[in-house]
Amino acid sequence: MSASPAPAFASPVSAVAAPEAGRYTTIRHRTEALCRPLLPEDTVVQPVIYVSPPKWHLAHTTWFWETFLLREYLSGYTVFHPDYAFLFNSYYNSLGSRVNRADRGTLSRPALHEVYQYRAYVDEHMQRLLAQGGGLPAAAREVFELGLQHEQQHQELLATDIKYILSTSPLAPAYQPAPAPEPAATVPPASWLPVAGGVHRIGFQEEGFCFDNEQAPHDTYVADFELQNRLITNAEYLEFMEAGGYRDFRYWLGEGWDLVQQQGWEAPLYWTLQEGRWHRFTHSGLQPVNLAAPVTHVSFYEADAYAHWRGHRLLTEQEWEIAARQFQPTTTGGTFLESNRLDPQPLAPNAPADQCHQLLGEAWEWTYSAYHPYPGYQRAAGALGEYNGKFMINQLVLRGGSCATPESHIRITYRNFFQADKRWQFTGIRLAR
Amino acid sequence: MSASPAPAFASPVSAVAAPEAGRYTTIRHRTEALCRPLLPEDTVVQPVIYVSPPKWHLAHTTWFWETFLLREYLSGYTVFHPDYAFLFNSYYNSLGSRVNRADRGTLSRPALHEVYQYRAYVDEHMQRLLAQGGGLPAAAREVFELGLQHEQQHQELLATDIKYILSTSPLAPAYQPAPAPEPAATVPPASWLPVAGGVHRIGFQEEGFCFDNEQAPHDTYVADFELQNRLITNAEYLEFMEAGGYRDFRYWLGEGWDLVQQQGWEAPLYWTLQEGRWHRFTHSGLQPVNLAAPVTHVSFYEADAYAHWRGHRLLTEQEWEIAARQFQPTTTGGTFLESNRLDPQPLAPNAPADQCHQLLGEAWEWTYSAYHPYPGYQRAAGALGEYNGKFMINQLVLRGGSCATPESHIRITYRNFFQADKRWQFTGIRLAR
Amino acid sequence: MSASPAPAFASPVSAVAAPEAGRYTTIRHRTEALCRPLLPEDTVVQPVIYVSPPKWHLAHTTWFWETFLLREYLSGYTVFHPDYAFLFNSYYNSLGSRVNRADRGTLSRPALHEVYQYRAYVDEHMQRLLAQGGGLPAAAREVFELGLQHEQQHQELLATDIKYILSTSPLAPAYQPAPAPEPAATVPPASWLPVAGGVHRIGFQEEGFCFDNEQAPHDTYVADFELQNRLITNAEYLEFMEAGGYRDFRYWLGEGWDLVQQQGWEAPLYWTLQEGRWHRFTHSGLQPVNLAAPVTHVSFYEADAYAHWRGHRLLTEQEWEIAARQFQPTTTGGTFLESNRLDPQPLAPNAPADQCHQLLGEAWEWTYSAYHPYPGYQRAAGALGEYNGKFMINQLVLRGGSCATPESHIRITYRNFFQADKRWQFTGIRLAR
Amino acid sequence: MSASPAPAFASPVSAVAAPEAGRYTTIRHRTEALCRPLLPEDTVVQPVIYVSPPKWHLAHTTWFWETFLLREYLSGYTVFHPDYAFLFNSYYNSLGSRVNRADRGTLSRPALHEVYQYRAYVDEHMQRLLAQGGGLPAAAREVFELGLQHEQQHQELLATDIKYILSTSPLAPAYQPAPAPEPAATVPPASWLPVAGGVHRIGFQEEGFCFDNEQAPHDTYVADFELQNRLITNAEYLEFMEAGGYRDFRYWLGEGWDLVQQQGWEAPLYWTLQEGRWHRFTHSGLQPVNLAAPVTHVSFYEADAYAHWRGHRLLTEQEWEIAARQFQPTTTGGTFLESNRLDPQPLAPNAPADQCHQLLGEAWEWTYSAYHPYPGYQRAAGALGEYNGKFMINQLVLRGGSCATPESHIRITYRNFFQADKRWQFTGIRLAR
Repeated sequence: MSASPAPAFASPVSAVAAPEAGRYTTIRHRTEALCRPLLPEDTVVQPVIYVSPPKWHLAHTTWFWETFLLREYLSGYTVFHPDYAFLFNSYYNSLGSRVNRADRGTLSRPALHEVYQYRAYVDEHMQRLLAQGGGLPAAAREVFELGLQHEQQHQELLATDIKYILSTSPLAPAYQPAPAPEPAATVPPASWLPVAGGVHRIGFQEEGFCFDNEQAPHDTYVADFELQNRLITNAEYLEFMEAGGYRDFRYWLGEGWDLVQQQGWEAPLYWTLQEGRWHRFTHSGLQPVNLAAPVTHVSFYEADAYAHWRGHRLLTEQEWEIAARQFQPTTTGGTFLESNRLDPQPLAPNAPADQCHQLLGEAWEWTYSAYHPYPGYQRAAGALGEYNGKFMINQLVLRGGSCATPESHIRITYRNFFQADKRWQFTGIRLAR
Repeated sequence: MSASPAPAFASPVSAVAAPEAGRYTTIRHRTEALCRPLLPEDTVVQPVIYVSPPKWHLAHTTWFWETFLLREYLSGYTVFHPDYAFLFNSYYNSLGSRVNRADRGTLSRPALHEVYQYRAYVDEHMQRLLAQGGGLPAAAREVFELGLQHEQQHQELLATDIKYILSTSPLAPAYQPAPAPEPAATVPPASWLPVAGGVHRIGFQEEGFCFDNEQAPHDTYVADFELQNRLITNAEYLEFMEAGGYRDFRYWLGEGWDLVQQQGWEAPLYWTLQEGRWHRFTHSGLQPVNLAAPVTHVSFYEADAYAHWRGHRLLTEQEWEIAARQFQPTTTGGTFLESNRLDPQPLAPNAPADQCHQLLGEAWEWTYSAYHPYPGYQRAAGALGEYNGKFMINQLVLRGGSCATPESHIRITYRNFFQADKRWQFTGIRLAR
Repeated sequence: MSASPAPAFASPVSAVAAPEAGRYTTIRHRTEALCRPLLPEDTVVQPVIYVSPPKWHLAHTTWFWETFLLREYLSGYTVFHPDYAFLFNSYYNSLGSRVNRADRGTLSRPALHEVYQYRAYVDEHMQRLLAQGGGLPAAAREVFELGLQHEQQHQELLATDIKYILSTSPLAPAYQPAPAPEPAATVPPASWLPVAGGVHRIGFQEEGFCFDNEQAPHDTYVADFELQNRLITNAEYLEFMEAGGYRDFRYWLGEGWDLVQQQGWEAPLYWTLQEGRWHRFTHSGLQPVNLAAPVTHVSFYEADAYAHWRGHRLLTEQEWEIAARQFQPTTTGGTFLESNRLDPQPLAPNAPADQCHQLLGEAWEWTYSAYHPYPGYQRAAGALGEYNGKFMINQLVLRGGSCATPESHIRITYRNFFQADKRWQFTGIRLAR
Repeated sequence: MSASPAPAFASPVSAVAAPEAGRYTTIRHRTEALCRPLLPEDTVVQPVIYVSPPKWHLAHTTWFWETFLLREYLSGYTVFHPDYAFLFNSYYNSLGSRVNRADRGTLSRPALHEVYQYRAYVDEHMQRLLAQGGGLPAAAREVFELGLQHEQQHQELLATDIKYILSTSPLAPAYQPAPAPEPAATVPPASWLPVAGGVHRIGFQEEGFCFDNEQAPHDTYVADFELQNRLITNAEYLEFMEAGGYRDFRYWLGEGWDLVQQQGWEAPLYWTLQEGRWHRFTHSGLQPVNLAAPVTHVSFYEADAYAHWRGHRLLTEQEWEIAARQFQPTTTGGTFLESNRLDPQPLAPNAPADQCHQLLGEAWEWTYSAYHPYPGYQRAAGALGEYNGKFMINQLVLRGGSCATPESHIRITYRNFFQADKRWQFTGIRLAR
């Protein structure tokens, strides 16, 4: 365990130097670009409690800049609207009362165009703050970087929430045109890659930004293990379905089996049979399932049941990171938000069997590790202390990023987390033994 | 009890003769006019299950014409979109499956402009049907008239649902500008008007249209009674509040008292204290309570508790109609939807004490009568048999129309009905003894 | 409407004169006799919120005597246990806080034998009060009579709650032995009996005790109608089931149809198919359905749907009482609690077709009348004002008593009331047209 | 990680040799002794879903012997009652349908005395099986040992469920007399004991029985840490309460804070203020809080919040076991079920500061470790595979046993598990840093 105290959100000075204004603009624009294909109607609804209206994302990310940067560091700043703090606070108890999360979808006002005015107002003042003599005050740099990362997190949520929202309409509307169909690819069988056990150091030890939950770097012991060199494909998952996987309790955790019964699960989220063939709802509407692509939109329960059925298991987050440190993945060739594909891509047929593929991008990988504090973890003081630490119970860690994660946002120490029943993120499966 | 069988929805031929096309256009336009001040965002949300999104009202009323008129009577008619029957059926089991009522607010698509295209398409075909040689087929005339009445019912729901939707925003947005403030009026004390008991004939016996639930006309006996010559005012209701009415179980029905406790009711819906003064949310945003105006947005439980506290009681629907037949109210001077005021108006200070005021318009009057079938009531055959009859349980009858009811829609035999806990309609109180 | 003010609970002095102590003892003993076949375990459970544990009934009825008689009128009386007022108050807000109704089944203590000690203690003191020089104080006589009636009401609830409790065990335990099987009887077809319409006086106008809800006697008008001369039998109801009555929404009120779907209703409560034959759970365990006996354990929704399917309707409570006043039924030949049969009996095969049978006893008859106050109804002052009046919403009136009603408790003006969905009472069907 | 496959439930032959019959009888008798002070009424109720009726425990443990031993290994065995498999199966999907867990408290039958007959019948046949020539078949020995352990687990649940059941009565009945009050003890301040980090082997590596979830033994790495040498006392916890710990969100996990708000938590379960002094409900009724005793009946959320407030943290289960292996605790001096005290005892005032106390007995210690499979964990085949593995999600590990755990049942590798919100077990707090 690292004895040296780490900053809550580590970001060396160099990361937020001169190109601050440019990075700010680029990231803020991307958020809006994501929403451009939407109609105002699409930005309002909240079909389930964990999906937020896009209008809310647009406003909440802006509220973050206003609250943590402009009100603190831009002298003479006047808030855009006195009620917005109440409306667009997500979960910070430190910052007072707020709209009940379940009621986000009942608010038609402020209108979308007013939210865009809010964004413009805050952007303009942020540029003023960034252009101030001497640049951003030292105290503000960490929060500035956090604001950018926070905005990127909401970009991923926007992509997945939009998909869910459009999926609720029987009209199956398309967010963007479907790509040209590609020739059916053949994915070679997965190979097993060995990783040597022992004491390994994990947690963020690199340059640049990390979230507080990746701290402190620390030693951990794992035994020798093997992992598959790629994600599980739709074809492989379909074998599980066709073998009756959803009808046999023996593969399932108790809570998972209860959900299968109650919810009538018999396939991943978004899958539907049309004239005898499996289709799935995508950002391009209803499309045939691409058998070669990685399976996504499975819950932890399904991932674990699949692994059981195969006679294998999921990785722990320690194993995942140790493997990643061994195989040193880059984002090259992976599918990320920037590609606008919003759909995981199949592995190239000629991908070498002795390399580990798809560690970054395509699909978040469920691990069988609880989202708990690392040894030496410290919550930050003040409101930002509520960013990560208070969620460290009853959630599981996911690793590696997905096709909806910004490429510049992911790294091998990144700890994403969701409850075991959630399926609306691009969540997939990798096996270990 | 009338022995002669009455048509389910009575409407003599004369009512739907030549000016059919004109009436159709006028009524359909009013629906759209009601929605004109709304942003697309406002038309999507469903803050509680009994409030429907305005976009849904716009589409559902159109679906009614398409389903019951165009598909039946316009040869060669092609439906606008094959999925709309599923999307916009309200509650007709006869017509197949439909979107769950609680999920109306999760549908962002079809977009508002698509719903307007749907309306234009159906309107154009309706004009074609109405212009056909020989006019509307005889068989269709009854349904045509019902379609107009149905559209008017949804106009009232639109007015009240819009109010509820806008009220959920802490921004208290205004649907329309506030009228110029008027000098504080003094409403004279209510006087008691006697009505002679005996056997009276009630139910629809006039010319023109009525709903099936106003049939059959029948005799009923009531004892002598007196009723107040006007509605209860906000000032009078405030006395109840200030006397602790919401804190004393003795005035309340058991279910009502449970609601008061669970929901924390301490005033009518939409009321809020601002700097020591009661305000209420209106179509013009938050406004001071006009003490002279009739109290509205009270549940049956509150109406009944108020009456108890005063030592009086509510009328039965039989008493109400017998009184109305005696006092022969007209709609002149009353406030209806067409006035666009969307707020009940105070009685003129010089209103004669020996006349019965506000029987039509201003506020629906809760009666202590269950919404049950009249003697001789017959459900219509087919889907329209689901229009009224199947709701005849656990609801109470309201009489007289409100400031949100179209003037041409109301009559003294009209039986509106809601559950005892509902408060989002313009519902008020008249006392009897 | 009666102008003369009636006492809340009418009971002329003569009714509670000398034989008070004897009536008290007889009725109290019957309550205990009803519980004698039970094991302590049976007296504790509350399988649904509206079924109370027998131990609770035993204690609550005793609490009534203690609270309203002994504490008020027996000088020097000391309560048996200071916590029992909290534990065994049913719903009297006037008397302070109490155990949540839903939690009655979580209380294992006081034990059954302690409740019997409580009963003995109160009974002994009641005898002392009744034996006092001069007898019961005048002020106490009305409450004394009410206590007896109250105890009888709980006897009926005990009989039906015990049935429900035992029915939840897959072991189908018998409360009492089954009677010897009788030869299959043939019930003659129902005949229609005419009743002349006009203004009739209903409500309690007789000698003796009545509840406040039977007051005031008043005139009412009904048109000519006919009613069937007996209750609907199981054989007739089975025709409805076999004709698909539970699968066709057209016969049902909307709320009823929702229940059919949600609860999977396809027969009356307690019915179950065993080897192709319908059985029903009774106080003697599982028994074949006696086709000749009146159908019971149907909700109002089922009664109304059955009537619809036959093309007829249920009576209103006014019609029922007017018919009863015409046919002057006695309790002779009817089945009541005192018979210990606890099961409705078939009509004798030779029952005259021109007489009206089964008006009293066998099964409560659902009427299509809301349980609302009669004209001139006044709630009593104080705690007893909560006895009936506060329940006058969202319930329906049932008439005539059942095989679980004490014979001395029923009369033709008696207004029982339950919500439309309840099925655990002996509730049946009579048709009108 | 151990490469050698371990039996699902490890129990060397020697453990179940000759004294089988004696151990069986002793353990079975203890279960019944625990229930002896109960009235039949107490054995039926289920005040919350996770508390089972004692009658159910008595029957379910018996069902276990009948199902897994007698039906499998005693030739000619006839089940006591054909319905009991349905009634008393707890959660084994392999063994067919069963009573819904939430409905255990609605079953009054079979009666308590019938359950005792069931126990006697099964015990008699078990003795026959154990007395068979050659003793228990080899295949049955593992299951026999598991049956004993299973029965002991239910003894602990019986003790805690009985406490909960009696606590629901406002009468606060005592299960057993209160012990004589002892002079107020002074517990010395906790000292910090260092444990050296590094790679340590944990998991069951000893002789005798263990559950499958303690397998496989494996290496794990921890950094240097310190733990307190005793449990947190009520006095210390009271400081947290008085410092406003329940009113400051900063100390709490998000889900915990939501619970504090929703449930109105302001003290451990069973605590109540009486005349300004904290009392708690015990097996001897309501008693003053003993400030020197370890705090119990806290949820994980409270334990974690307390640790936060002190600026420390809870242990992980790896740290706990490594510390236990270092300090080698025995059960001597600890409080266990056999003592019948059913209440954790204060540490002796003269307990040495350099020793680690209360590791075994008194209170289960919440760890901040998810109940997940150990490396190398294998679910057993068949129904017993459902014993532990399917619960390995959304629960936390507790270590060390409590005053309600049988002394012969606990060991340092034992992994107990509950959801983070549960408080009805004897759960306490030990701090680390």
